[in-house]
Amino acid sequence: MSYPRKIKGFRDIDVNLNQLRWKIINSAKKVYKKYGFEHHDTPVLEYSECLGKYLPDSNELAEGVYSFKNPELELKFDNKGTEIRDEKNNVVMENHFLTMRYDLTAPLARLYAESLWDMHKHKQVKEGKTPLMRRYQYGQVFRFEAKLDPGRFREFWQIDFDTVGTDNVTTDAEACMILADALEEIGLKRKNYIVKVNNRKIIKGLLLSIGITEDADEQNIMRIIDKTDKIGTQGVKEELAQGRIDKKSGAKIEGLNIKNEFIEQIMSFLNDFQETGLRKNILEKLNNKKIENQIYKEGVEELIKIDEILTTLDFDEQRVIFDPTLIRGMGYYTGPIFEVEYVGTYKDKKGRKRKVGSICGGGRYDGLVEKSLGMKVPAVGASIGVDRLAEILTLTNQITELAEGPVIIIAFDDNLMIEYQKIANNLRQNNIAVEVYYGSRKNLKQQLSYADKKNCPIAILLGENEYNKGVVTVRNLKLGKELASQITNKKEWRERVQSEVKREKLVEEILRIKN
Amino acid sequence: MSYPRKIKGFRDIDVNLNQLRWKIINSAKKVYKKYGFEHHDTPVLEYSECLGKYLPDSNELAEGVYSFKNPELELKFDNKGTEIRDEKNNVVMENHFLTMRYDLTAPLARLYAESLWDMHKHKQVKEGKTPLMRRYQYGQVFRFEAKLDPGRFREFWQIDFDTVGTDNVTTDAEACMILADALEEIGLKRKNYIVKVNNRKIIKGLLLSIGITEDADEQNIMRIIDKTDKIGTQGVKEELAQGRIDKKSGAKIEGLNIKNEFIEQIMSFLNDFQETGLRKNILEKLNNKKIENQIYKEGVEELIKIDEILTTLDFDEQRVIFDPTLIRGMGYYTGPIFEVEYVGTYKDKKGRKRKVGSICGGGRYDGLVEKSLGMKVPAVGASIGVDRLAEILTLTNQITELAEGPVIIIAFDDNLMIEYQKIANNLRQNNIAVEVYYGSRKNLKQQLSYADKKNCPIAILLGENEYNKGVVTVRNLKLGKELASQITNKKEWRERVQSEVKREKLVEEILRIKN
Repeated sequence: MSYPRKIKGFRDIDVNLNQLRWKIINSAKKVYKKYGFEHHDTPVLEYSECLGKYLPDSNELAEGVYSFKNPELELKFDNKGTEIRDEKNNVVMENHFLTMRYDLTAPLARLYAESLWDMHKHKQVKEGKTPLMRRYQYGQVFRFEAKLDPGRFREFWQIDFDTVGTDNVTTDAEACMILADALEEIGLKRKNYIVKVNNRKIIKGLLLSIGITEDADEQNIMRIIDKTDKIGTQGVKEELAQGRIDKKSGAKIEGLNIKNEFIEQIMSFLNDFQETGLRKNILEKLNNKKIENQIYKEGVEELIKIDEILTTLDFDEQRVIFDPTLIRGMGYYTGPIFEVEYVGTYKDKKGRKRKVGSICGGGRYDGLVEKSLGMKVPAVGASIGVDRLAEILTLTNQITELAEGPVIIIAFDDNLMIEYQKIANNLRQNNIAVEVYYGSRKNLKQQLSYADKKNCPIAILLGENEYNKGVVTVRNLKLGKELASQITNKKEWRERVQSEVKREKLVEEILRIKN
Repeated sequence: MSYPRKIKGFRDIDVNLNQLRWKIINSAKKVYKKYGFEHHDTPVLEYSECLGKYLPDSNELAEGVYSFKNPELELKFDNKGTEIRDEKNNVVMENHFLTMRYDLTAPLARLYAESLWDMHKHKQVKEGKTPLMRRYQYGQVFRFEAKLDPGRFREFWQIDFDTVGTDNVTTDAEACMILADALEEIGLKRKNYIVKVNNRKIIKGLLLSIGITEDADEQNIMRIIDKTDKIGTQGVKEELAQGRIDKKSGAKIEGLNIKNEFIEQIMSFLNDFQETGLRKNILEKLNNKKIENQIYKEGVEELIKIDEILTTLDFDEQRVIFDPTLIRGMGYYTGPIFEVEYVGTYKDKKGRKRKVGSICGGGRYDGLVEKSLGMKVPAVGASIGVDRLAEILTLTNQITELAEGPVIIIAFDDNLMIEYQKIANNLRQNNIAVEVYYGSRKNLKQQLSYADKKNCPIAILLGENEYNKGVVTVRNLKLGKELASQITNKKEWRERVQSEVKREKLVEEILRIKN
């Protein structure tokens, strides 16, 4: 015997939440397909080294993820895919580390690299001439966040689209349009969401202009700035400088020890873009900054092109804005980055107003495939947080539709079980979902309570009397619920919601009620 | 840098295989819903002790599965859900073992037990009065089979339905009907599959009649008989007796050391049912066996009822047969068991004819929830092996339809990129899937080859000349492929498949070609 429970941060999904989850997936999928993306899938489990380490806030390969050793003993390979041998020329075997995927982007990079591996080894692919691939994918991803905030989960679904093999900035603009189209297809109203765009090159250029050139420093600084929402501007300043003491845990958080003068420059830049506005105005402001390096200019130039395409196609600031303070947590972004914010608040269990925040994220990652292929392959994509969005739509009462249950056949009489089966069979042949009640509760009230929990629209009643007369009783449960508060006279209520029907007219009657 | 590859036994699924996978899932789902099952989901990862050990061929909890320690340090609980404390009354903490689900049945038992846990602790639920639950679920399951046969995978999809909370044998009969209906909805022809039914109680009764009463002995014997397909009758005999040497590996396989006389009795019983026939005849044969114990009689009695229901509803031996030699590998079955065999062969890569074998399995498992709840909860269900079935449909050339790609806009001229976007946007607003080519290949032939790989039905061509004239060229790629072998004159071929269309007439023309 064992105490039945789920792992903390994992959850079961019931029929109503599933209906919502799949409404989101199917809507997004429809839009992705419309833009020419194809459905590809990758495994839940991958070699740790093939996924790499890109999670925000993580310094180690096994940090923030579910990772373990493969039970299978396998050959050890070097980076070129050649088996490693010891001094005696025997092959070296080991149990490789595996990781449950933490997103759908790193596995795509592996898939793409793998498909090119042989061609690349034989020098049949050139940088800048890599094949184009446009794929969408959906599924669970897994993150072991040591501290689990309320409403956050360790297993959650994402639906992604990615274009690999081109650095054409049009695909970055397109990503913004796809996100907007997908969210509206899902049912979000315009002005209830906003796609925010920045360019990592702008932040890189800013840091370069104040003398920060090391990749690691850049990554660390971005990681800290990205925490602004959590730790506030003051917290960010402290972590960039000598560090701080976390108020809740009392833990000492190491600082990056950046010169105060540099920190001021970074903070002042970010501060200048606190207010959003027209894309044109943001671009002007960016151009007016006295930052002259190439990377910064490229960053601004790309945003200008993105604005041009969006404007031509009528994607104005109601849908897409520029936000130079945007960072995104993932370590692999190299160019334009996107985040969709749900504009609006909800009330939590304690009745407090809460902001929703980010529901989608994405960006350009021209270096991710390089990690395994050793060759730059430009790529851009984005991801909708399916479960996050489902939760928000529920919390803000935008989706209240319950999943409809089957027509239920009340089982009064064990001797009539075969008759119930015949009726069910006949209805199913007419494409009507129907269930014979098989539970242990024998009385009508208990069976109707089961039907109510399953949101069954109609009940069919058949006892010995009815059987002998060749009829069944049909009760409209949906109407019954609606009328329950208006009609208190039981007899009148029953007359309104219940009727006797000849067995041969049953299909017709059920279809009449359902439509 | 790391050598890009997948874990052995795991694979990527491309757009065509995905189309087939989801055709199977959506068809089965439709039938399950029609029978009144609701969609519930459980996590991919569970506490190992909550899943238990039921895999065929496995003796240890961690055998045959992907299992590892939770990175989170947690309280230790006893079977009643009370935290365990040491001598000094401090709570005991540990990293619990987690397992990636190996099927969808064990997690359902956990879900059901968890939902009843509190009520059960307060004695608000009685045995025989447990609530009814009918759910379907689909998703990946994971098995670490140390020896991986060709065509077998360590990650594969299943789609299950289960009825929990009733021992009504009608639900067992229903399970057979659901499997048959689902497979036909997926597209299998009648006589191409057969649902085989047995009852574990019959095997239990047989063993009991020869004096084998221990649960562990029973399980071991069934496990060995279940291997008949793999190791043959002689192999089974040897494993029941003193053991055998595996020919391939040379490994010694321990035997159960059962008396020869008993083995003969078991083998003779199984041998008597090598030929299938009418269910009525099998029942008669079972009744004629001189086995008098209660469990055997119950087993036969249940099959009689199942036959009665199936016969009334016209599910004859074309769809469902009885097979008293059927065992099923899972350790949790207690009553009727089902297996669907795909009737037919395919040719493997070497051109050898191969039998397909089992594509679905299921049965009654009245003891599974008991493990965590400490109370018997009757349950029955079955599972379709989605990936197995997809493979068979592919190998037997029954599903050859490729996924259709988007309309492709050939990108000749970077200066016209905005025009391509406008055309794409306009088509999408008319619900046409369309992609602007963004790859690095600039010439027409290369772009058309990309379109061909994606199975694009139509190409749109727009160069400077066409732009100035306000027209585009539309090429029917699908027709072009069909005519390629018939028409060798290039000009004639082009005239047949290609036409110039005014920009404002484009949507109309695309819809005309597509329909």
